[in-house]
Amino acid sequence: MRIDNRATNQLRPIHIETGYIKHPEGSVLITVGDTKVICNASVEDRVPPFMRGEGKGWVTAEYAMLPRATDQRSIRESSKGKVSGRTMEIQRLIGRALRAVVDLEALGERTVWIDCDVIQADGGTRTASITGAFVAVAIALGKLQDQKKIKSFPLKSFLAATSVGVTNDDGVVLDLNYAEDSKALVDMNVIMTGEEEFVELQGTGEEATFSYKELQELLEVANKGIQELFHHQKEALGEVAERIPSKGREN
Amino acid sequence: MRIDNRATNQLRPIHIETGYIKHPEGSVLITVGDTKVICNASVEDRVPPFMRGEGKGWVTAEYAMLPRATDQRSIRESSKGKVSGRTMEIQRLIGRALRAVVDLEALGERTVWIDCDVIQADGGTRTASITGAFVAVAIALGKLQDQKKIKSFPLKSFLAATSVGVTNDDGVVLDLNYAEDSKALVDMNVIMTGEEEFVELQGTGEEATFSYKELQELLEVANKGIQELFHHQKEALGEVAERIPSKGREN
Amino acid sequence: MRIDNRATNQLRPIHIETGYIKHPEGSVLITVGDTKVICNASVEDRVPPFMRGEGKGWVTAEYAMLPRATDQRSIRESSKGKVSGRTMEIQRLIGRALRAVVDLEALGERTVWIDCDVIQADGGTRTASITGAFVAVAIALGKLQDQKKIKSFPLKSFLAATSVGVTNDDGVVLDLNYAEDSKALVDMNVIMTGEEEFVELQGTGEEATFSYKELQELLEVANKGIQELFHHQKEALGEVAERIPSKGREN
Amino acid sequence: MRIDNRATNQLRPIHIETGYIKHPEGSVLITVGDTKVICNASVEDRVPPFMRGEGKGWVTAEYAMLPRATDQRSIRESSKGKVSGRTMEIQRLIGRALRAVVDLEALGERTVWIDCDVIQADGGTRTASITGAFVAVAIALGKLQDQKKIKSFPLKSFLAATSVGVTNDDGVVLDLNYAEDSKALVDMNVIMTGEEEFVELQGTGEEATFSYKELQELLEVANKGIQELFHHQKEALGEVAERIPSKGREN
Amino acid sequence: MRIDNRATNQLRPIHIETGYIKHPEGSVLITVGDTKVICNASVEDRVPPFMRGEGKGWVTAEYAMLPRATDQRSIRESSKGKVSGRTMEIQRLIGRALRAVVDLEALGERTVWIDCDVIQADGGTRTASITGAFVAVAIALGKLQDQKKIKSFPLKSFLAATSVGVTNDDGVVLDLNYAEDSKALVDMNVIMTGEEEFVELQGTGEEATFSYKELQELLEVANKGIQELFHHQKEALGEVAERIPSKGREN
Amino acid sequence: MRIDNRATNQLRPIHIETGYIKHPEGSVLITVGDTKVICNASVEDRVPPFMRGEGKGWVTAEYAMLPRATDQRSIRESSKGKVSGRTMEIQRLIGRALRAVVDLEALGERTVWIDCDVIQADGGTRTASITGAFVAVAIALGKLQDQKKIKSFPLKSFLAATSVGVTNDDGVVLDLNYAEDSKALVDMNVIMTGEEEFVELQGTGEEATFSYKELQELLEVANKGIQELFHHQKEALGEVAERIPSKGREN
Repeated sequence: MRIDNRATNQLRPIHIETGYIKHPEGSVLITVGDTKVICNASVEDRVPPFMRGEGKGWVTAEYAMLPRATDQRSIRESSKGKVSGRTMEIQRLIGRALRAVVDLEALGERTVWIDCDVIQADGGTRTASITGAFVAVAIALGKLQDQKKIKSFPLKSFLAATSVGVTNDDGVVLDLNYAEDSKALVDMNVIMTGEEEFVELQGTGEEATFSYKELQELLEVANKGIQELFHHQKEALGEVAERIPSKGREN
Repeated sequence: MRIDNRATNQLRPIHIETGYIKHPEGSVLITVGDTKVICNASVEDRVPPFMRGEGKGWVTAEYAMLPRATDQRSIRESSKGKVSGRTMEIQRLIGRALRAVVDLEALGERTVWIDCDVIQADGGTRTASITGAFVAVAIALGKLQDQKKIKSFPLKSFLAATSVGVTNDDGVVLDLNYAEDSKALVDMNVIMTGEEEFVELQGTGEEATFSYKELQELLEVANKGIQELFHHQKEALGEVAERIPSKGREN
Repeated sequence: MRIDNRATNQLRPIHIETGYIKHPEGSVLITVGDTKVICNASVEDRVPPFMRGEGKGWVTAEYAMLPRATDQRSIRESSKGKVSGRTMEIQRLIGRALRAVVDLEALGERTVWIDCDVIQADGGTRTASITGAFVAVAIALGKLQDQKKIKSFPLKSFLAATSVGVTNDDGVVLDLNYAEDSKALVDMNVIMTGEEEFVELQGTGEEATFSYKELQELLEVANKGIQELFHHQKEALGEVAERIPSKGREN
Repeated sequence: MRIDNRATNQLRPIHIETGYIKHPEGSVLITVGDTKVICNASVEDRVPPFMRGEGKGWVTAEYAMLPRATDQRSIRESSKGKVSGRTMEIQRLIGRALRAVVDLEALGERTVWIDCDVIQADGGTRTASITGAFVAVAIALGKLQDQKKIKSFPLKSFLAATSVGVTNDDGVVLDLNYAEDSKALVDMNVIMTGEEEFVELQGTGEEATFSYKELQELLEVANKGIQELFHHQKEALGEVAERIPSKGREN
Repeated sequence: MRIDNRATNQLRPIHIETGYIKHPEGSVLITVGDTKVICNASVEDRVPPFMRGEGKGWVTAEYAMLPRATDQRSIRESSKGKVSGRTMEIQRLIGRALRAVVDLEALGERTVWIDCDVIQADGGTRTASITGAFVAVAIALGKLQDQKKIKSFPLKSFLAATSVGVTNDDGVVLDLNYAEDSKALVDMNVIMTGEEEFVELQGTGEEATFSYKELQELLEVANKGIQELFHHQKEALGEVAERIPSKGREN
Repeated sequence: MRIDNRATNQLRPIHIETGYIKHPEGSVLITVGDTKVICNASVEDRVPPFMRGEGKGWVTAEYAMLPRATDQRSIRESSKGKVSGRTMEIQRLIGRALRAVVDLEALGERTVWIDCDVIQADGGTRTASITGAFVAVAIALGKLQDQKKIKSFPLKSFLAATSVGVTNDDGVVLDLNYAEDSKALVDMNVIMTGEEEFVELQGTGEEATFSYKELQELLEVANKGIQELFHHQKEALGEVAERIPSKGREN
């Protein structure tokens, strides 16, 4: 039993609230245990200069934390005048992950801006951001299709992410909270499509290393968690979920 | 009747939710119509270098908007690498206002950081920030006193703020939403204490000017609104409200 | 009697020297007691991108202090790599104030840049900047009209500013010098047109508050001072002053 | 056969030149095909402020490219005034990888700075940096031990990195050059110790995804390449190599 | 005859006004033709961290231009967020030049800050800055000695600077104004001590080159101009001039 | 005899390796004693905005040092977020020097970017950069002519640079290494053309001054060294050297 009484392969309680902020085309508040992220998707009718005239769209993401999302107040990146390496890594990851399932040709010359703002953090903010951002983007694209601005729905698959890790106390565990994460020997983020294909795999031994055998166990438990996340995404999306191709195990 | 069917001297619906984020010493989500601001108060056990050794505390504030708090997505200030003039003006105003009612000697050598993050904007974000920040600060100071870290309660008075203005359609109006604000001839922010004293008065003719007579009307309607805000603050604060000296009209 | 032997409602000695720097279209050295500000107005034959094609002009201002304008040398903002919140607040104030009396349609698609550089500071630098900038702008616009580049004169009214405050020693006082300003309980900047209308009113209780009654006294003494400033502006402007509509008390 | 006539599981020619720059404690020019990186290790007798007094050392890395290391000249990050997200990601990766095999207690309160400067790029610059940096660090630590500044040798294992990927033309391939990398469907960086444990695994589907089966093939071919890199590191290190614990397949 | 009717070896009219700004320890407005520079010298009772405890002082300089010192308004460096290469070059030059004649041991652990702010520019601003800064520094050091804070006077010699150049129209000329400077083939700044020794010599062929023979002529005419500048400096300094060792031709 | 056993008028060993990096149009590794600089010349088919449509080209330079090019590791300018004054001075100098010998009309609307990256420093890095950059530029322009993109060869003359100085131990010396440079009384950089004309002369008394007589000796020994540098450049350039007009002493 883990410190919050979960089984090793158990996710924390998940909640996805849609329509959270009124202005964005898609807006979601995703809650994963005590981690809360506002994911907004904005559609802009143009692409960055380097892509103009190609008839394709673009998806990009930004990520931030409120200063007091964490136990210790952190300094705002706007006050420091620059974005930290950690933030850059995460926002590049979110953008890359979403682009893997968006059909950029079907999107047309539009940019989807994803803003993931962590208002409360307790571990797993980047994977919660990806899981929530997928829902926000799906809603925004659904509106675009409802307005007849695009013909075919530009999502090729479902997409969700979770973290897995190895801790001294519990071995291989799913969906680490902050207390677990800060003492984990290995930390791995797994992003998968509805077809059980990997989009991204990032495993790091934190002043430790991991073997082939541990890797297999980590991937197995991650897959289980991600299938459950797909279920939550479908519930949140309702009718829009049916527009997304899906032939994975979870159906 | 105004575009949202309010009387000219009527506030929008106010809601103050306490304990909104779990980490900060004081945390509030204030809702004023469609404007929503997370106000967090963090207590740090030291003061800035220029104040050390004086036995006094400090109160400072930061303000930001999520990129999609507004109808058009704005660029993040962390990406731009600098804080805009508007943001600086607002966060200086919030800090100054709160310092007017905090007894810095009673606070001791501590800093109270106020973070006001607008997650949804519809006009009046700076006055909502001040009204909400007062509640967050009161809660944080209440905890400090409960923990016996300070003897006397360091708030000298209640504090709330609202906006008033002059529009072509409705004349002098209270608590302007964004649509009203963007076409107002005169825009005034009024910050007052529970003793009906002014802390700050900022009136601007927006490509227009205003007379002595209009000024008197603006101040009258502002006072009415602020008394109602005190009522909402007291409800949100519960027992802590009783520690704040209060001898104004509203009792 | 105040520390510099003035009556409470007495301005410091005012001097406005025109044609101070040879390059700008309008250039003024304004002296208010020991405060000295170079106010330059530059006319550029285009407007910022967001205003192009509307047939209207723009007025914007920048403000700075020499490092040793003050008793203690301050660090240059160019060395720090960013403009302080105080500077931003002041330059936004100057620009807004001037725009209130410039007829932007009559100006045509031109930008008037106002540069206020404080070479010696002794309190009241922002109000001296506005009072001086008005003269510099009037001169620049006068030349534009003399050159037949514009038909009607684009100033709708006179504009001047002063500070008033409340001190422990002298109560309500006009035009505070630095020694008075640094111990004032209340500090208020008042900007008015030649028609005795307010353009901007900014009153702040500095770790203090102020009542309705004090507010009325502050406005009365401010109005007296501003009328005298109009007199100095008219003397400095000579013939150009006659092009500005004026129906206020002072005629 | 690949475009440069290699077998799919064949590394490009490797050369590791030690003592390349005279000032650093450890200096290496590593050549992997047409990719050339100068890896310098500098030892400083103190640690960052947040680590002082703990008796432990620190290892950190910086990475850069000469503007014309690539076919198109890129703008210097010093001229842009900020480090790109890509650079941050890479330098964080290099530092994290090296810390996994350095015994920070045995190092004592010292910082090892690793500077990886790419002077010519043809794909795989981050993995070449890690492989070369390991040699530079080993040399620097060897000197430290020769000078009796530390007792036990602070390297716990060998460390090397390579890239693997999937391309349309050749399927799973080892050590991609730039031409292969830019059209790869999947790109994976693998960092391993001499004990065949993973330190870091980063696999990305570039607008594509990858299956479990492909993952296993990628890891197999990566392992083969890394064993060969260990061989080159040992040759370059000579006697110092014998101080590093090693019990892997390659002995 | 030159465009302003001067002889080729004739300086423009020079005026050095002392006591220009009231706060600095030494303050000068130097006028060289239409070039006007405020030179302020500030004495701070400490040295930069890298010099502490050595018993020596430091001299450093900053240089700036008002945006409208020139015919075309330039953007403020504080707005751009960085200091230009030209500004850096000039302020490093001014600091280096002054340090050549200040006895840093005699100064003690103090910093002399020199601020040269060009309020009107017509060529030769860097040499006017040096010539004026020398006077401001001498005045500041004179006060320091009058206050018995230092024993011996820390200036080892006089110091002045001028520009010389080669133009198509007039050949070798002294003290170029902006019109001459912008079409000069060769531009040389010469900084000399009262002993006719060189402190700095910077000659540049502007898309042109110059011969040994031209160099000799340039140095001859520069020396003549600098001797005249010493005369103006002595007049401005009065009694303080007598504290400066001087054995050159000009006595 | 100097500390490295050279005669006072003797250069350190010079080596110029061409074709050092494969991507740039011209690439050189220049070695002057223990100073090593990679000089890359890149040709871009457009000019900066301020020059467009004039039919002329542009030459610009950037300079940097690897952090551990020096004995003490320096902080990267990209990490500091700004380029130092020293770097700016040097890169402006390199660009200006090269422009003096490039026929910008013959170059056409192209930009030549020069990148000088010091990988190992032992004094004289800026003069080595200029001498090496000339060779890199000549090679790049040679290719341009070979490809028939330009008709006439756009170099008007040879160009090389060296440093001279005065030290207490050896008097006037040529080509100072770092140990000599750091204790030199006078430091002078001389840049000359193949016609023995000066392009730039920068002499600085480092907390010292220098006389007319010393200046003449410095120029004499600099000229001797530069003639030898021309010899090395010609050897490195081979056939391309013959396209450069040359009528100086060295033929």
